[in-house]
Amino acid sequence: MTVRVGVIGAGIMGADHANTVHRKLSGADLVAVTDVDASRAQAVADASGAAVATDGFALIEVPSVDAIIIASHDSTHAELTLAAIAAGKPVLCEKPLAPTVSDSAAVVAAERAAVGSGLPLVSVGFMRRFDPGYVRMKAALAAGRVGPAVVVHGISRGVSAGPGATSESSITGSAIHEFDCVPWLLDSPVTEVSWHAGRQSGAVEPVLRDPQVLLLRTADGVLTTVEVFLNARYGYDVRCEIVGEQGTLALTEPTTVVVDSSRSHGYDYAADWRPRFAEAYRVQLQEWVDSIAAGVASPLASARDGLIATVVAQAMITSMHDAGRWVQVEPPAPPPVR
Amino acid sequence: MTVRVGVIGAGIMGADHANTVHRKLSGADLVAVTDVDASRAQAVADASGAAVATDGFALIEVPSVDAIIIASHDSTHAELTLAAIAAGKPVLCEKPLAPTVSDSAAVVAAERAAVGSGLPLVSVGFMRRFDPGYVRMKAALAAGRVGPAVVVHGISRGVSAGPGATSESSITGSAIHEFDCVPWLLDSPVTEVSWHAGRQSGAVEPVLRDPQVLLLRTADGVLTTVEVFLNARYGYDVRCEIVGEQGTLALTEPTTVVVDSSRSHGYDYAADWRPRFAEAYRVQLQEWVDSIAAGVASPLASARDGLIATVVAQAMITSMHDAGRWVQVEPPAPPPVR
Amino acid sequence: MTVRVGVIGAGIMGADHANTVHRKLSGADLVAVTDVDASRAQAVADASGAAVATDGFALIEVPSVDAIIIASHDSTHAELTLAAIAAGKPVLCEKPLAPTVSDSAAVVAAERAAVGSGLPLVSVGFMRRFDPGYVRMKAALAAGRVGPAVVVHGISRGVSAGPGATSESSITGSAIHEFDCVPWLLDSPVTEVSWHAGRQSGAVEPVLRDPQVLLLRTADGVLTTVEVFLNARYGYDVRCEIVGEQGTLALTEPTTVVVDSSRSHGYDYAADWRPRFAEAYRVQLQEWVDSIAAGVASPLASARDGLIATVVAQAMITSMHDAGRWVQVEPPAPPPVR
Amino acid sequence: MTVRVGVIGAGIMGADHANTVHRKLSGADLVAVTDVDASRAQAVADASGAAVATDGFALIEVPSVDAIIIASHDSTHAELTLAAIAAGKPVLCEKPLAPTVSDSAAVVAAERAAVGSGLPLVSVGFMRRFDPGYVRMKAALAAGRVGPAVVVHGISRGVSAGPGATSESSITGSAIHEFDCVPWLLDSPVTEVSWHAGRQSGAVEPVLRDPQVLLLRTADGVLTTVEVFLNARYGYDVRCEIVGEQGTLALTEPTTVVVDSSRSHGYDYAADWRPRFAEAYRVQLQEWVDSIAAGVASPLASARDGLIATVVAQAMITSMHDAGRWVQVEPPAPPPVR
Repeated sequence: MTVRVGVIGAGIMGADHANTVHRKLSGADLVAVTDVDASRAQAVADASGAAVATDGFALIEVPSVDAIIIASHDSTHAELTLAAIAAGKPVLCEKPLAPTVSDSAAVVAAERAAVGSGLPLVSVGFMRRFDPGYVRMKAALAAGRVGPAVVVHGISRGVSAGPGATSESSITGSAIHEFDCVPWLLDSPVTEVSWHAGRQSGAVEPVLRDPQVLLLRTADGVLTTVEVFLNARYGYDVRCEIVGEQGTLALTEPTTVVVDSSRSHGYDYAADWRPRFAEAYRVQLQEWVDSIAAGVASPLASARDGLIATVVAQAMITSMHDAGRWVQVEPPAPPPVR
Repeated sequence: MTVRVGVIGAGIMGADHANTVHRKLSGADLVAVTDVDASRAQAVADASGAAVATDGFALIEVPSVDAIIIASHDSTHAELTLAAIAAGKPVLCEKPLAPTVSDSAAVVAAERAAVGSGLPLVSVGFMRRFDPGYVRMKAALAAGRVGPAVVVHGISRGVSAGPGATSESSITGSAIHEFDCVPWLLDSPVTEVSWHAGRQSGAVEPVLRDPQVLLLRTADGVLTTVEVFLNARYGYDVRCEIVGEQGTLALTEPTTVVVDSSRSHGYDYAADWRPRFAEAYRVQLQEWVDSIAAGVASPLASARDGLIATVVAQAMITSMHDAGRWVQVEPPAPPPVR
Repeated sequence: MTVRVGVIGAGIMGADHANTVHRKLSGADLVAVTDVDASRAQAVADASGAAVATDGFALIEVPSVDAIIIASHDSTHAELTLAAIAAGKPVLCEKPLAPTVSDSAAVVAAERAAVGSGLPLVSVGFMRRFDPGYVRMKAALAAGRVGPAVVVHGISRGVSAGPGATSESSITGSAIHEFDCVPWLLDSPVTEVSWHAGRQSGAVEPVLRDPQVLLLRTADGVLTTVEVFLNARYGYDVRCEIVGEQGTLALTEPTTVVVDSSRSHGYDYAADWRPRFAEAYRVQLQEWVDSIAAGVASPLASARDGLIATVVAQAMITSMHDAGRWVQVEPPAPPPVR
Repeated sequence: MTVRVGVIGAGIMGADHANTVHRKLSGADLVAVTDVDASRAQAVADASGAAVATDGFALIEVPSVDAIIIASHDSTHAELTLAAIAAGKPVLCEKPLAPTVSDSAAVVAAERAAVGSGLPLVSVGFMRRFDPGYVRMKAALAAGRVGPAVVVHGISRGVSAGPGATSESSITGSAIHEFDCVPWLLDSPVTEVSWHAGRQSGAVEPVLRDPQVLLLRTADGVLTTVEVFLNARYGYDVRCEIVGEQGTLALTEPTTVVVDSSRSHGYDYAADWRPRFAEAYRVQLQEWVDSIAAGVASPLASARDGLIATVVAQAMITSMHDAGRWVQVEPPAPPPVR
């Protein structure tokens, strides 16, 4: 069976997903694409033979579309995901599921109402769960290679923040990866958070505190530090170290070539996330397509995972506005027993 | 268009190719498989829904097979490739195209006779040409990042040699990757070679000199050193450094996780080539399938490339048997002008 | 001129200093040693030809002793330093100058009373100021290589805590290096601190919270995170990264040999601080001796630097006992103008 | 006892030695210096309080000079060493002991005639024997950490060749380090050698073949490859890897700080050998001085070691002029039994 995929959003992320579906997946065809900028959608269509839909809602209703990827603006994620649920079609929504807790919760509730104890329809694009490095770290931790975790250190640096970035959007749009990733690595939910600011980078407007330093406590007692620095300039650089009772596990930069030149030895950083997580995105999409074809539950992050990450983000923003005090995370209701 | 692929040989290499075709390629289906050990073929068929053919020649003739991958014993490569040419079907033959120069030349001649100035049918599986590290090194060299090359150092180490390995099969079966890779990196053919032996590893029978140290001279004057050590024990480890007039380029081990434990800091080696070159094999097969679907020339190594590597291997064996003296490489006739 | 040095304390640290003075310094002789354990003092004396003094106070009074190193128990530092001041002899006191603020302040006051605007007598052994890595980081930061600092990350891990270690002694005995080092690197004093605990390592008694995660704010606004983990088991591992507006600077583990073995690639950690900081200790002592011989001010950390580090430690302990809230650091009175 | 040292030659190497003796050694004083350029000698004298001697022979005769370091032009090494022997004073001669075998042999013979079975007077400055990395590699090999050696790879690269460099002087002046170091590491003498050239770097005059690739065979059967590239441009870079039956040992670049900046991650190379081998030179001189003070045999390379390295260099040059054929190394007569 070939899964026929439609992609909503043809910006950097959506075009990348569309290309992956078209060129790199087994058992998937790209059949439709749409974007608020029709020329961007047309460019993707021209490269792949997919049709152009007038908008996301129309794309969802196209009969030949079996499954939907949502990569449009964050503010549209919830309503489009709800429409896909209403259409009864599997949907992979880019993170965040929604920028607000209430919208995320609405998606969780709608999916539950729609499928009951049946197969969930919604997956959320927390692709780090499929990155070879994170996967190996989680496996090594679970296997006891370094003993139980005691501390985690995460770093997320980018070259420059997108237009309109604020202190809050840095949390809901970037740090949210850590809010999903850390509890997934530790298999323990975040219970409280505390927000702190580094010295403000001189190149950044005050509306965005950058860098930020975040503390997370998980139910197992582990303390996680996270540095998020959107304007780190030197390159796109994501790091993670898990410190256990007997040793540590850390990601390495997945480079392939090292250069000696002009009195220095080193390797290059990518300018954005695509080269760094290309394999994670490919594997995530392949696993998603395979689960649809096989009629089994998606192994990706669920709608509830997306909601939980947003709840953590909200607590972090509360701490930000309250002098960095520790803020408790209120967990959403547990999923129904199947 | 979906390319329907048949795989001849279901050993480690063939099963790996079959799985890649079945699970990881866009636009390809695995439709048939065969092996001298019927149970191995059946295992692959069971995992993929492919049919089992009685032997390689039968598989080639199956009407639903559009293209063939040959991963059976080296000694069968030439006759099966000739059969695929006779059937007019694209074929990807694992290296070496044939262990002998005469058999390799026969394939080149047969292909030329069959297709004339049309699309070649034969590709050879020198997958390093698609490894991200080698690709980036070649691009950086061509871009002048370290100036013109002056010396190259290659290292090919494995954990243990397969049964029946000899000094000569180490050349034709392992070092042959270097004989294709180095001239491809430098864009300059090998013109002379010289063979030398390291101290014989105590764990190895005398019929296999291991490690060996090989010198290659290319037409551009660059000198390449190659260490081939099949019984290096500690891990599968392939390295390459290109030294230029202004700097160097070197592969890094493509690791993703580093561990601190028990007074040491480090990363793990794979036990064989599959993890190291998984991406190279996947990309190579995708590019091959894409070229077939598009009706364009394969970007993989050609039959003539396979012949040339075998010619270099033959010269190296001559040096081995003649006290390491420099032996000239006689280039095969140039390809016809198209 | 040869500086004749006496060493008080012949434990691991003192014996190491004694050996450095005897074997590795230009312009210095080891002439006297003492320890509460006479056999340890005798062992050092036997190896060097130095005399054994009955106790620290007696050693200070030995006429042939020009300068004193104090490496005895932390609780003795202040009174011995005061005795050296009274004797008018240069003294290098191991960190901490004293475990309490009041004792440290008493040393600062006594020195000021003794020497007025003359040459200070007291140096404190914050040897990281002479470690080649820290020195290069400070120089590169000051040279603007990565722009102004925004965040610093420090890590101090040891194999196992000494007997009797408590949460507080981890601060005053280990983390205190960071309290001196970070403001020295940034050239900006610590203004506030906040204390947090990682998950308690199962191997550690509750009287010692281990690991701890500390936050420091310096006057320049930079936020520093410090992980102190006395029972990290895997090795002695000190790290530091300075994140600037345009890039980062980080220490590398000063290893010299890398090993491939048993499916892994890596290097060894030392079991304690001596190999890691051997060069820092040697250079610190040489610079101290050179300054004495030349009759110029010591370039080592001063008594006031030692007091300031203790003040920061005290504030951190206050935060520890007050749920991690940010605690202001009250700076000691400025030094007199000379 | 303080050893009073005179230094002949105040160029880069001699000035560095003089500074080490004056500033970094325990138990040594710099008392005299000389150079063909009187102003260079005076500069060293001004910095240290040493006297200036009119020439090397005069310096050797100065009564207050206990021991001599020869760091003048290679062509003067032999005659000055002979003068030191005649004066009965310990002498450390920079490598090479002499550029020719006959001159080196003359020194060996003169020393033997002078001291008989007494303490040797001559040491040769093969400082790699005291480099922490080489020392650890040799110890790890001897301890069996990677099994018996089978192959060694050495690389010696510099930024640019000195004026007047020729293919032959590259062997006698630079590669000679490898001719001493490899047999010292393996504890097995070089028995045959073979010379090869890389592609000629476009920046180099033809009188100097650069880079060169050298093969060494030691008596234990181990094959060593050495790349010597005097004009590598990018930095001073010395590497060594010992491949054993069970694993490998390799030097790491002794860096202390790593920088992220401008899309790259890396560390700096030194422009010449001084930072790379500063510790080796310091330890070598300290060990030499200690042996003189203690009246025991020098642990440095001996005159005979210097002769042997020159014999290997001579064989390599013979191979260079004979198309790279393997040339046997004729060992000098064994030392007398003591």
